[in-house]
Amino acid sequence: MRVFIVPGHRAVTGGDFTLNDLSGSTGRLDILLRCVNSAFFLSNGIRHDAELYLVLLGNPDPPKTIRFVGGELRYLNPDERSTAALVRTALMKKCGAGWMKSTPGIYIAKKGFEDVVQECAGRGGEIVYLKESGEDPRKAGLAGADSVFVLGDQHDLTAEEEGILARFRHRTVSLGPRSLHTDHCITIINNELDRIAGAE
Amino acid sequence: MRVFIVPGHRAVTGGDFTLNDLSGSTGRLDILLRCVNSAFFLSNGIRHDAELYLVLLGNPDPPKTIRFVGGELRYLNPDERSTAALVRTALMKKCGAGWMKSTPGIYIAKKGFEDVVQECAGRGGEIVYLKESGEDPRKAGLAGADSVFVLGDQHDLTAEEEGILARFRHRTVSLGPRSLHTDHCITIINNELDRIAGAE
Repeated sequence: MRVFIVPGHRAVTGGDFTLNDLSGSTGRLDILLRCVNSAFFLSNGIRHDAELYLVLLGNPDPPKTIRFVGGELRYLNPDERSTAALVRTALMKKCGAGWMKSTPGIYIAKKGFEDVVQECAGRGGEIVYLKESGEDPRKAGLAGADSVFVLGDQHDLTAEEEGILARFRHRTVSLGPRSLHTDHCITIINNELDRIAGAE
Repeated sequence: MRVFIVPGHRAVTGGDFTLNDLSGSTGRLDILLRCVNSAFFLSNGIRHDAELYLVLLGNPDPPKTIRFVGGELRYLNPDERSTAALVRTALMKKCGAGWMKSTPGIYIAKKGFEDVVQECAGRGGEIVYLKESGEDPRKAGLAGADSVFVLGDQHDLTAEEEGILARFRHRTVSLGPRSLHTDHCITIINNELDRIAGAE
């Protein structure tokens, strides 16, 4: 399983938002919606071997995390608006500390960044932090299928989040000479992992 | 200049559509909107060295092509809805055979696939056709900055379009073992070209 973790530092944690202004009134939830697209969509299907955790840290009720499980997803379309509707449905559920199913393949819980990193680290795969100053995965290699990738949203991880990550054994990787959007990074990682799997 | 050409075989050629149903009522214009995002967006700016031609071939008035020029773009945001609004503005203009400016960096003309390929081939750069059966660009290399990339939308190029392309010297390239969305292919190509430029 390839796992992606993305914190949305200002992303809304309530379902009271309009689908008509996703980039303006949702704390840049649109950035995270594009991550859903890049994490899961193949030309003719869904990546069953991917999971995505969106850690929502904005008002009114932070933190909440929405977890997408590729092997269970239904009703997911590639456009931002329909994905936003699924996220809004999840945010309207009353959730607690454990995962609660919203729609097929989409779960929500009152979990923050530390909870999620700890949960994913418990799976035993390599943890990879995507940051501009990191090493080149083409030269250093990636472990492949069971890695956990931690990415920033439009900002890097905060010092506090980096402090949390520092408690877990991890590598820092950079995808190229230009600074890229988070969803573009996920697309490139997926391609890199496809190539590793394809070459096996 | 890196140039991308994407035909939208059913994409609308009139401005009479709602921004609230981009994946359902526009002949999958949403696919092309995501290509705009992946062609131009860097984390903190626009790729000034990129151009994108969206060749719209659906009703009511095909063909029309919308040309995006990275170095001139203003008012472009990464979300699908605001890009759709700029495309709709362009489609509401009465256009002819020559490029007409709609908004900064966005032009429209009554041009079809052959017109656009011919125009781009005239620039002299390498033409690269993205198709699953092609060679691996990491092994075969890409010429770099001045290439013209031709991609399909959710379908491959038609036999007729491949026939047009066959009249121009070109290579066929494939990005990996899985079949990818067009916008994801553009993201990966941009990263590959960034790496080539960064290594120079």
